[in-house]
Amino acid sequence: MARVIVDVMLKPEILDPQGEAIASASARLGFPAITSVRQGKRFEVEIDGPASETVLTEVREMAQTLLANPVIEDFELRVE
Amino acid sequence: MARVIVDVMLKPEILDPQGEAIASASARLGFPAITSVRQGKRFEVEIDGPASETVLTEVREMAQTLLANPVIEDFELRVE
Repeated sequence: MARVIVDVMLKPEILDPQGEAIASASARLGFPAITSVRQGKRFEVEIDGPASETVLTEVREMAQTLLANPVIEDFELRVE
Repeated sequence: MARVIVDVMLKPEILDPQGEAIASASARLGFPAITSVRQGKRFEVEIDGPASETVLTEVREMAQTLLANPVIEDFELRVE
């Protein structure tokens, strides 16, 4: 049993209105050090058995199909 | 200029129907290695200047106020 973390973020060239709203709320609410925020998704995927190359390929395919929209999002896998 | 990552996940005792939906879709769509999925949020927070203790305290307060609901969610900070 292993855990793979999949981080999904909007591509840098895609506008992120949610992140912008958080950044401007931060400034208004007294957190001046924060200059920008981007919001994404984080998935904790538990897999059966060890994180072999085959299993990681399967998780990568699953992430591409179900977790991320490859047109506007990038994703990264890491084994924890 | 530094970047702080804030990971927000539902507390372990809180049900995650979105994650469960992803896990059962994975099984159905031919990704048998995946046994469970939990979905959370990931924020990339850019800060002015270096990630000093004062600034990290500010980001922690901001995360608690704006990014996470401490009743049902846990969050973690890490400097990147």
